[in-house]
Amino acid sequence: MEITNEAKTYTKGGKPASYIPELALQSVEQFAACIVDQNGNYFEVGNIEAQFTLQSISKVINFIVACEYHGLQFVLDKVDVEPTAPGKPFNPMINAGAITIALMLPGESVKDRVDYVVDFLNRITDSPHQINEAVYRFEIETTHRNRAIAYYLKANDYLLCDVEEAVETYIRLCSLEVSTKDFAKIGLMLAGNGVHPLTNEKLITPKTAKITKALMTTCGLYNASGKYAASIGIPMKSGVSGSVLCTVSNGKVEHLKGKLGIGVYSPGIDDIGNSVAGMKFIEKLSQAYDLSIF
Amino acid sequence: MEITNEAKTYTKGGKPASYIPELALQSVEQFAACIVDQNGNYFEVGNIEAQFTLQSISKVINFIVACEYHGLQFVLDKVDVEPTAPGKPFNPMINAGAITIALMLPGESVKDRVDYVVDFLNRITDSPHQINEAVYRFEIETTHRNRAIAYYLKANDYLLCDVEEAVETYIRLCSLEVSTKDFAKIGLMLAGNGVHPLTNEKLITPKTAKITKALMTTCGLYNASGKYAASIGIPMKSGVSGSVLCTVSNGKVEHLKGKLGIGVYSPGIDDIGNSVAGMKFIEKLSQAYDLSIF
Amino acid sequence: MEITNEAKTYTKGGKPASYIPELALQSVEQFAACIVDQNGNYFEVGNIEAQFTLQSISKVINFIVACEYHGLQFVLDKVDVEPTAPGKPFNPMINAGAITIALMLPGESVKDRVDYVVDFLNRITDSPHQINEAVYRFEIETTHRNRAIAYYLKANDYLLCDVEEAVETYIRLCSLEVSTKDFAKIGLMLAGNGVHPLTNEKLITPKTAKITKALMTTCGLYNASGKYAASIGIPMKSGVSGSVLCTVSNGKVEHLKGKLGIGVYSPGIDDIGNSVAGMKFIEKLSQAYDLSIF
Amino acid sequence: MEITNEAKTYTKGGKPASYIPELALQSVEQFAACIVDQNGNYFEVGNIEAQFTLQSISKVINFIVACEYHGLQFVLDKVDVEPTAPGKPFNPMINAGAITIALMLPGESVKDRVDYVVDFLNRITDSPHQINEAVYRFEIETTHRNRAIAYYLKANDYLLCDVEEAVETYIRLCSLEVSTKDFAKIGLMLAGNGVHPLTNEKLITPKTAKITKALMTTCGLYNASGKYAASIGIPMKSGVSGSVLCTVSNGKVEHLKGKLGIGVYSPGIDDIGNSVAGMKFIEKLSQAYDLSIF
Repeated sequence: MEITNEAKTYTKGGKPASYIPELALQSVEQFAACIVDQNGNYFEVGNIEAQFTLQSISKVINFIVACEYHGLQFVLDKVDVEPTAPGKPFNPMINAGAITIALMLPGESVKDRVDYVVDFLNRITDSPHQINEAVYRFEIETTHRNRAIAYYLKANDYLLCDVEEAVETYIRLCSLEVSTKDFAKIGLMLAGNGVHPLTNEKLITPKTAKITKALMTTCGLYNASGKYAASIGIPMKSGVSGSVLCTVSNGKVEHLKGKLGIGVYSPGIDDIGNSVAGMKFIEKLSQAYDLSIF
Repeated sequence: MEITNEAKTYTKGGKPASYIPELALQSVEQFAACIVDQNGNYFEVGNIEAQFTLQSISKVINFIVACEYHGLQFVLDKVDVEPTAPGKPFNPMINAGAITIALMLPGESVKDRVDYVVDFLNRITDSPHQINEAVYRFEIETTHRNRAIAYYLKANDYLLCDVEEAVETYIRLCSLEVSTKDFAKIGLMLAGNGVHPLTNEKLITPKTAKITKALMTTCGLYNASGKYAASIGIPMKSGVSGSVLCTVSNGKVEHLKGKLGIGVYSPGIDDIGNSVAGMKFIEKLSQAYDLSIF
Repeated sequence: MEITNEAKTYTKGGKPASYIPELALQSVEQFAACIVDQNGNYFEVGNIEAQFTLQSISKVINFIVACEYHGLQFVLDKVDVEPTAPGKPFNPMINAGAITIALMLPGESVKDRVDYVVDFLNRITDSPHQINEAVYRFEIETTHRNRAIAYYLKANDYLLCDVEEAVETYIRLCSLEVSTKDFAKIGLMLAGNGVHPLTNEKLITPKTAKITKALMTTCGLYNASGKYAASIGIPMKSGVSGSVLCTVSNGKVEHLKGKLGIGVYSPGIDDIGNSVAGMKFIEKLSQAYDLSIF
Repeated sequence: MEITNEAKTYTKGGKPASYIPELALQSVEQFAACIVDQNGNYFEVGNIEAQFTLQSISKVINFIVACEYHGLQFVLDKVDVEPTAPGKPFNPMINAGAITIALMLPGESVKDRVDYVVDFLNRITDSPHQINEAVYRFEIETTHRNRAIAYYLKANDYLLCDVEEAVETYIRLCSLEVSTKDFAKIGLMLAGNGVHPLTNEKLITPKTAKITKALMTTCGLYNASGKYAASIGIPMKSGVSGSVLCTVSNGKVEHLKGKLGIGVYSPGIDDIGNSVAGMKFIEKLSQAYDLSIF
């Protein structure tokens, strides 16, 4: 595909996240993309089974699980979905909100909570997932910023449980290994508003699917969310491992028609935290196949 | 329509904007809605020719005009489209950005700039528009907050022209009289990505149309933008006169199929500034006819 | 005096305030200092009659006049004296507070208010004062930041009068011409807690004198107030014209004993806005004669 | 003393700090004050040997120790002494600065650092001091806000050591038991600019003493520092245990002449964190004996 070749020329435009040794060691030349359509056709670039850690994209999965378990209203009473509201940074796509959400995951212990999410992920993707313990061990030692946020939340009575438990749960889920193929399946499920288009299994409610896509659109790409909403117009979420999860509801052009799920991985990220080649690929794809929701 | 009847029960849930006498005098019981589809069918509720002032919705029109005149890149070099970026509140849907945009309107004087926008509006809506001078005179005297912003911009070298000229231009355009029918036509033109679906005239570029819809989605409803993106999922912009302009690209259900433009007016607004009955109407409509982009 | 010679070597370390042409034209080599003790002895360096504009030091004079006219409690109900309180920047030594204070000056018009302050100043200094109209005309045209603040205050109902009147009053008083000899007399009056040590005339109440000195100590030197409180320990207020007004209550060493008033002028200022040679002179003087209140 | 009787009527105007059980249990009716003058005369009210924990007043002691050990410049390169500077809350009298200072205390372990400060305190006060282990154990478990600050500092590379070590050091020193008599001695030493007026021993440098008094004046009483600088004008620092340490350099009136050190204790505090009866006592004393530095 011409788009792929063009995107690949950007792989060296970014650098792997330097603060986690396991990520820093990744070759920036890697590039993988997986697209699945509603008929089960896969479009593959590179090694779509290559494993990388979820990082911030865990925010999306955790938010879905929390909403499904507690109901949307319970969750929205505790976090805020405004991108602009001053003084309330509890958006689930931003760390303070994400840590609050981590504590709403079902279970009484870190293990319970993590297992619950892994089971959910296994079910959507039809494949087992495990924690990258090396990444976890490093991140749990060094995640000072998340601990600062968690203690701030605790000091202000927003965290009802132990701080360390909140941070461990959140970081373990950031360390879950996934592939672009997994992302494509998750994206396709969101495109189907919770009904898996291939199996017809109802995995989550349409309401949860829609609010998740709205949050991905307004806040999914760190401080470049607005820019990419304008230029790409696809609900997506990125992580510092260099991966992006996209969901498309209305492909209009032959070959990429109807509902699509897309996963991209290229470890070189820009200063804001988004995969350079990954974003370039999605931008070209959106423009070539008119995938924008706008 | 059942939806209309239900929405109308909410008209008394809000109060007209109290700080502008002309608005404060409006009866809260008013309710008008106009939907136009791509085949030119109109769906009407109440008096769809009833006039009200543009207020904040002028931000959308001005942004479109500035982008078309200068090119997108020129405009984006001067304002910021991030909803979340801290310390850069120059989003064109927020007052600081909107005042900056007002100064990019073509022309050398307040009159030139206002005339240019009115001409553009006349062309989209096929009807003449004029300033409500009573509203203008009151607002220009009392718009202390906009003057504070304009002087702040001037002090930081963001405003290249005279402050008073910037404020006058902005406020005159807030005082332009429009109807829900006008909004429906504008919304339909945006749904068509700039090509008027009825006349096939190319009014603006697809790029400008798409970024405008992205901005409306992330920032169109003041500090309730995120909430409504999740529950309604339609690009829209509200004004304190109690009006809302919506644009729908992909109506999927019989009767409201394909591209749609929607205008709603009901002067009772909530604390955040959005029309109470208007938002209720749009929410019901979106749910009943599956109009969400998500 | 050795101290003077040392201080003078610093005159070229700063630059005159560039944003006001009249100030920008001043030769940085100017240096004048006047000290008066409680027995009426004057210590003079350079031309102590040289005129410069009050600028920010008008904040001190206006605050005193407002407190004397309305009583301390009335004023403190409207402005805040905390240097650290977050979200309440209404300290009278900072522009928002100073503009609020300008409106509390006795009189119904700009002229009335300015005349009242000039009369008060004439009485303390036994000499007439007038506005530098060239400085005033320039500043009133370009003081965008003060107008932004004034409109912000107006928008939040803190300013009860016309914004333009507030700004004109404030700027006219910034443009009053004074000399280091005037400052020495004002400083001596404050050292005497309102009783003029030479004439024994009671000019202001001890309460007003003390709170003024406290404010000068915590907030008198822009964002270097804390640093100079530690290293110099003298209540003082600086202005961007390169002048400083100091008040010393307890000179302990022969020659500079008891109460003192000090005025210094050297137009080269640093990035923060304080006279480079002026501050150096005061620092050396404080250390040599043990003038710190700490 | 009439002042004491009047101040005592205010003991019930405050409440003991509720978040630490040991403090919450204190009877609000307690009132003790100790004044020592430069001739060694003690003025006593209540039980001046009564023990309470240092709490925030440890910030003063730690700052002095750090300055003496490393030299003033080293410390000032790492913390900021401005009360007003925006975005730099590293003032040593405020928690972020105080935690940074705690890590500059000499020693390689928590125990070393605490012992060093205790030795210093023993030397000034001629009496042994120990940690209140019950208070320490409770605070170390619940000090979420300080941990949030410490992790924030660590995340931004301001803390060079282990976060837990920083927090433990800081909290252990907050839990040190002292008496109003101890405070009087420390205050007298500061009044003497580091030379103990009774023993003539040189305990700290004049520079450290002066900057400490400046910081106490601008930031010693939480968000009421400016108000009390104006109404009382004595360098002092308060703690949530309801205690206040004051230092007076220039008592002018018979009975309270020359240098004085003052300690006050009354556990009922106001919303801001200052002892209600304690502050009332100091205010009356300052006015009756003209103790203000202003």
